[in-house]
Amino acid sequence: MRVGFAGLGIMGGGMAKNLQAGDVPLRVWNRSPQPTKAFADLGVEVASSPADLASESDVVMLCVSDTPDVEEVVFSENGIANGLAPGSVVVDHSTISPEATAEFAGRVADQGAVWIDAPVSGGSEGAENGSLSVMAGGDADAFERVRPVMEHFSSSITHIGTEPGMGQTAKIVNQILVVVTQLGVSEAFLVAEAGGLDLEKTLRAVEGGAAGSWMLSNRWPQMMADDWRPGFTIDLQLKDLRIALDAADKSGVPTPGTALTFQMYRALQQAGNGGDGNHALVKALQAMLHPNDDG
Amino acid sequence: MRVGFAGLGIMGGGMAKNLQAGDVPLRVWNRSPQPTKAFADLGVEVASSPADLASESDVVMLCVSDTPDVEEVVFSENGIANGLAPGSVVVDHSTISPEATAEFAGRVADQGAVWIDAPVSGGSEGAENGSLSVMAGGDADAFERVRPVMEHFSSSITHIGTEPGMGQTAKIVNQILVVVTQLGVSEAFLVAEAGGLDLEKTLRAVEGGAAGSWMLSNRWPQMMADDWRPGFTIDLQLKDLRIALDAADKSGVPTPGTALTFQMYRALQQAGNGGDGNHALVKALQAMLHPNDDG
Repeated sequence: MRVGFAGLGIMGGGMAKNLQAGDVPLRVWNRSPQPTKAFADLGVEVASSPADLASESDVVMLCVSDTPDVEEVVFSENGIANGLAPGSVVVDHSTISPEATAEFAGRVADQGAVWIDAPVSGGSEGAENGSLSVMAGGDADAFERVRPVMEHFSSSITHIGTEPGMGQTAKIVNQILVVVTQLGVSEAFLVAEAGGLDLEKTLRAVEGGAAGSWMLSNRWPQMMADDWRPGFTIDLQLKDLRIALDAADKSGVPTPGTALTFQMYRALQQAGNGGDGNHALVKALQAMLHPNDDG
Repeated sequence: MRVGFAGLGIMGGGMAKNLQAGDVPLRVWNRSPQPTKAFADLGVEVASSPADLASESDVVMLCVSDTPDVEEVVFSENGIANGLAPGSVVVDHSTISPEATAEFAGRVADQGAVWIDAPVSGGSEGAENGSLSVMAGGDADAFERVRPVMEHFSSSITHIGTEPGMGQTAKIVNQILVVVTQLGVSEAFLVAEAGGLDLEKTLRAVEGGAAGSWMLSNRWPQMMADDWRPGFTIDLQLKDLRIALDAADKSGVPTPGTALTFQMYRALQQAGNGGDGNHALVKALQAMLHPNDDG
């Protein structure tokens, strides 16, 4: 199965490298040429356009930033859709709108191709180690055909359902859980600090029970160390939360905790902290504690 | 070491039973006589008052509901303080105000006794199985003396710090984490449901990563099954959140997620759902979705 991979950023680059390392027949494309060089050096052919990439692929994978980027790479003049053969599969690993996904899936279906939405979680480290989690939506047969390809960069692959966009909705579920859990971790951290508690002992006392979470065990120690390096940046978190809040709005679901957290991240981005990790949420509460400090 | 145990409710009853089963020299007391009968049947002496209980104990443990209950059992006319010998230790397993705890500790210190605040988590099941987590504050020597007694009903015991109330503050940290995590689980659940996702597959897809938490893995399946039986009731959660919000207020820490969740639980209690488990938080959001349904 010939694979084309479009979008060699921090996520897509790691995923495509795992395909190359796994001897998958691979061609790549990226909007700016710089990231393609490492692939060319490894003997991977670089396509001249997304349409060119698609024209010699049975499966076209893409991993770009946001909904408009996907639309451009797929449906612009030299986009993937212009090179798609009937029977081929587009696998979108980007995190984008479920509603737009359903529309994109319909447009490629008109050409006899299938759209699988397959957003990932696990960060750049997961992309590099091949330990991403994939949440996929779309036709079950097409999903099963592309599953072995995704196994080169994923340790957990779940077909959530056959409707296009269901993978994206599962990713929204994931992101809501991540950020609201982080809100709780942030408030708890400041209460512990204000109470003069030993933060390490407090973590050990609570993480094994009903208060436990991945964010608590992994980010609390970073918060203790004033280590704001990103597993996932506030800039990207905001992008994903816009998608989440829009989807929740369209389905009529109230998400007050997610909305609150979005506002706090938005303030942090505005203050210049968009490149911090999402656990820097605690800084928004700290800023409320110290409104008169210079930035 | 002679142990007296006051408060044989759903938590204290299980803890005291584990002391009895462990052959700890034990006397008990309870405000209403009913729960003492099972102990009398096992040959455990029932004290006539908290003062009487304390007068023949080296360690007096208590586990009651709220700050005023502790004050009454310890400092009323026939309270524990009236029977305390110098050098004895009061271990308060109730979840109460850290500020009141510091005051209570000062009052027993005037009598030459020591106060250890040692709230627990793990629910009635943990009390019964002897698998509670204890978070303790107060003098380190006194804590080490009573640790072996607590090991009869605890699988995790952490001395958070030497200031009285530090155990209570750690419990507040625990409860903030629990409820705000549950807020995220509730919002994510409704988004998944509205998107038509397979809820079981969605859980499996996200619980192993950064979205994972104890509440997600344990309560989402209950929510799927409309199973609102309590691990911890909304009534008790509200009591603990009042303590948490009061402590956060006094220390000046903003806790918007905790405050939001408190309001939602308060509405549920008002609607008659105080006996539901704390995962019934999702019902507050569902009610916002269906404001015109009959209750």
